[in-house]
Amino acid sequence: MTWKEKLHEVIYEADTKAGKLFDVVLLIVILISLVLVMLDSVGYIYEVYHDWLYIAEWIITVFFTIEYILRVISIKQAKKYIFSFYGIVDFLSTIPLYISLIFAGSGALLSIRALRLLRVFRILKLARLSGEGERIGTAIKRSLPKISTFLFSVIVVSFIAGTIMYLVEGPEHGYTSIPRSIYWTIVTFTTVGYGDIHPVTPLGQFIATLIMIMGYGVIAVPTGIVSAEMVKQDRQHQNTQVCFNCGESTHDNSAKFCSKCGYSLNRSHEK
Amino acid sequence: MTWKEKLHEVIYEADTKAGKLFDVVLLIVILISLVLVMLDSVGYIYEVYHDWLYIAEWIITVFFTIEYILRVISIKQAKKYIFSFYGIVDFLSTIPLYISLIFAGSGALLSIRALRLLRVFRILKLARLSGEGERIGTAIKRSLPKISTFLFSVIVVSFIAGTIMYLVEGPEHGYTSIPRSIYWTIVTFTTVGYGDIHPVTPLGQFIATLIMIMGYGVIAVPTGIVSAEMVKQDRQHQNTQVCFNCGESTHDNSAKFCSKCGYSLNRSHEK
Amino acid sequence: MTWKEKLHEVIYEADTKAGKLFDVVLLIVILISLVLVMLDSVGYIYEVYHDWLYIAEWIITVFFTIEYILRVISIKQAKKYIFSFYGIVDFLSTIPLYISLIFAGSGALLSIRALRLLRVFRILKLARLSGEGERIGTAIKRSLPKISTFLFSVIVVSFIAGTIMYLVEGPEHGYTSIPRSIYWTIVTFTTVGYGDIHPVTPLGQFIATLIMIMGYGVIAVPTGIVSAEMVKQDRQHQNTQVCFNCGESTHDNSAKFCSKCGYSLNRSHEK
Amino acid sequence: MTWKEKLHEVIYEADTKAGKLFDVVLLIVILISLVLVMLDSVGYIYEVYHDWLYIAEWIITVFFTIEYILRVISIKQAKKYIFSFYGIVDFLSTIPLYISLIFAGSGALLSIRALRLLRVFRILKLARLSGEGERIGTAIKRSLPKISTFLFSVIVVSFIAGTIMYLVEGPEHGYTSIPRSIYWTIVTFTTVGYGDIHPVTPLGQFIATLIMIMGYGVIAVPTGIVSAEMVKQDRQHQNTQVCFNCGESTHDNSAKFCSKCGYSLNRSHEK
Repeated sequence: MTWKEKLHEVIYEADTKAGKLFDVVLLIVILISLVLVMLDSVGYIYEVYHDWLYIAEWIITVFFTIEYILRVISIKQAKKYIFSFYGIVDFLSTIPLYISLIFAGSGALLSIRALRLLRVFRILKLARLSGEGERIGTAIKRSLPKISTFLFSVIVVSFIAGTIMYLVEGPEHGYTSIPRSIYWTIVTFTTVGYGDIHPVTPLGQFIATLIMIMGYGVIAVPTGIVSAEMVKQDRQHQNTQVCFNCGESTHDNSAKFCSKCGYSLNRSHEK
Repeated sequence: MTWKEKLHEVIYEADTKAGKLFDVVLLIVILISLVLVMLDSVGYIYEVYHDWLYIAEWIITVFFTIEYILRVISIKQAKKYIFSFYGIVDFLSTIPLYISLIFAGSGALLSIRALRLLRVFRILKLARLSGEGERIGTAIKRSLPKISTFLFSVIVVSFIAGTIMYLVEGPEHGYTSIPRSIYWTIVTFTTVGYGDIHPVTPLGQFIATLIMIMGYGVIAVPTGIVSAEMVKQDRQHQNTQVCFNCGESTHDNSAKFCSKCGYSLNRSHEK
Repeated sequence: MTWKEKLHEVIYEADTKAGKLFDVVLLIVILISLVLVMLDSVGYIYEVYHDWLYIAEWIITVFFTIEYILRVISIKQAKKYIFSFYGIVDFLSTIPLYISLIFAGSGALLSIRALRLLRVFRILKLARLSGEGERIGTAIKRSLPKISTFLFSVIVVSFIAGTIMYLVEGPEHGYTSIPRSIYWTIVTFTTVGYGDIHPVTPLGQFIATLIMIMGYGVIAVPTGIVSAEMVKQDRQHQNTQVCFNCGESTHDNSAKFCSKCGYSLNRSHEK
Repeated sequence: MTWKEKLHEVIYEADTKAGKLFDVVLLIVILISLVLVMLDSVGYIYEVYHDWLYIAEWIITVFFTIEYILRVISIKQAKKYIFSFYGIVDFLSTIPLYISLIFAGSGALLSIRALRLLRVFRILKLARLSGEGERIGTAIKRSLPKISTFLFSVIVVSFIAGTIMYLVEGPEHGYTSIPRSIYWTIVTFTTVGYGDIHPVTPLGQFIATLIMIMGYGVIAVPTGIVSAEMVKQDRQHQNTQVCFNCGESTHDNSAKFCSKCGYSLNRSHEK
């Protein structure tokens, strides 16, 4: 086992003690870096602790840089990693502070902070650690065509409802333009309801009521889609054992004998 | 194949290259026209770019006019198209600008813009392009009687709750009339919650709390209805066994004999 | 058939032409009376059309009085009707205007209007006309013990969360008392979110975030309960035919032959 | 039966008349104590009735103290009770007033009231009285890993969306820091929508619209998870066939042989 292979095991896998430790440390550093970005955006903290935050961010950037280089070195197909989703995320979450050195200046300060915020994407790494997520992912993926068709028709309805509200309420009640009215319609339809814009005229309130009731009945649809998908998945998940004797396939996961002919289901595994 | 048939194929179908191209172009033009209507309603843009928007709208109107005429010409049963849902939508989305020429005047300007907004309905054409939507449609259609019964009782409850709140809170806290109180109740029940009207007295807040908790428990009902419908649809969809004798296709997975004519379903596999 | 029986048929049943007509007329009168109550509460309309509304209400009250008397007369067990839910509702929706005559006076005007509002309950009669509602009712009734247990624990959590928020935010940010904080918690938990009270301190906003995410995950529970109940109901609804030959009971409603042995299912009905 | 055993039966069980009475009395006292805590927090009531509330709280505290001591005495494994969840809750809901005697003073008054609020936890005892809750609990527990994975990715998305909104809207529109923007994102995503912070710029409103639609589609996921779990539970619950040979009870309705030992399930019915 070469040092490269060892490094690969530590960085990319989590079976060994060292690999597990590396992942946990990385996770903590990512969380710290996220907290730093958050604190940096709070005006009060920024003014008082700016220097300390700046130093801390440089330490993290160096850590991320080393990690990135090690990742590229220890993998066989470096290109595949670099252009993978996580490769790009890793790169984008490392680079901001370096760029801030080149394009420095008093005026560009704000935009530099914006770039630094990209480190937020680093949190996506956390998704790696989840295993249970896959099944949810499958259910979402399968119900996506249905849900997006549904969401599309919601948008169409929002467009029409938005223009009607624009005509009914008009600019004097906050519905200053059709895009803004559509924004209001979606705020209403999704039951968010900020209240920054709201109907004032009786007719407007009546139409709003209709939109709300519609939205209330309609929220059932994506839920129904995902529920059905989940139920289907559950059913398919249960039936993984086929009886060698009679071919019956609807057995419980924990079943040891065929529910139809009493033939042992384990024999198929034993042999 | 006459030119009429060719035209029909291009306009109404999407199998050939030309047909596909036509649909895509139409889709883009519809989207552009929607963006124009939206931009036109933004005060700032209206003032500066009004002339350009006016010209662009005329170009689109001419395009839609030609499309409409071709549709009428190329179909055999012109009447059926004209009075179909899409025929009416196509007509209504073409005509506004022409009407604005006849009923012109400084005072009628606003109402003309209102008519122009009807072009929004053109977006409904997009629904044509969806195929997945049908299954959702079926599930919604089947659960509609149940959901509308449910929504009706929600409205009845809203009426009673609205009048109670009108009595409890009264006009001095924004509940100026029963219709307005009902509006508030539905805003609350559907969990939209603008906050333009909200209970102020302790008793009012207590009743509001009850309404909210009820609404929270009650939102489960339409969702449950659609979910059950979707699960049912999934189950029926799984039944892929078609009877060789009578062609019946809605059999249970475990069925051995046709549920319609009693013919063995297995024979079709054995032979 | 005596005149009492005839009257009973017209008033209580909807099989004959006269019975149907009576129900439809009653429905329309109820709706008109509701609209009148609503209009009466709108300040502007009240001032201008008060006299007309007053006369209209008297006409409806007389109509309801006659209807109530006929209902009592035409039924055999008058007591049973009078003390039934609809009997009480009918009585309460008839009486307010009469009471306003006895307890008249300039100061009592408002309370009289309040009594009149009870006529709103008359709308509950509409529920009679619905048939589809029963199945939803069954599903709700069956899931009620589960849902109320669930809602109870939501209230317990709201109580604790409310007191925590009262301590964190305090009276200076609108959380003036624990009951008010609980009101806020339920407004948040049920995702209504008026915004009349909202957290201001960072810690309060953090706790609010936790409550919201919890509420977001938790809304799934009542929905899941009702969905499961609906799915169960659907499944049970399908299995109404038992094969006389082999006893198989999981047949589709439309099945004519047993799916297990091919025996005709109709024979059981024929004989 | 010693007096200890008798006491145990009265306090811990609800089979006998005395035991039932004790539980009901305890429940009422808990509810009264909660009402007292709530009333005490209302400024107006506090000023007028403070003395009476103070006395009432002492009476309840003494009652709780006696109850706690009896509980400890009457159980065999006192340690197990003391360090159980309810043991700690019982202790914490008894102690606050005693502590307020030791750490008294004009400045510490408020913090003392805070401690007193811990008595709220006493309400958790009510959960004991519920039986139906268990099945819901099981369904929630089983769907917890899926739901928490899901909620975690919601938080990740909220983090990214929050920082984007912070950059787009900026401090001048209320998005004063990233934590605050994340707070707004979760308020939006969970469809609470207070409206204390809301997007003002067109771009911000557009992004908000996307977040809302996403949240609308995404709320389906936890619901789907719980629904599927509930349906599964229902299905397993239907399996009422118990194997005579090994006692396994989780069989499918159509099962003919035990899934654990292969023993015929029908024999139990035949004989």
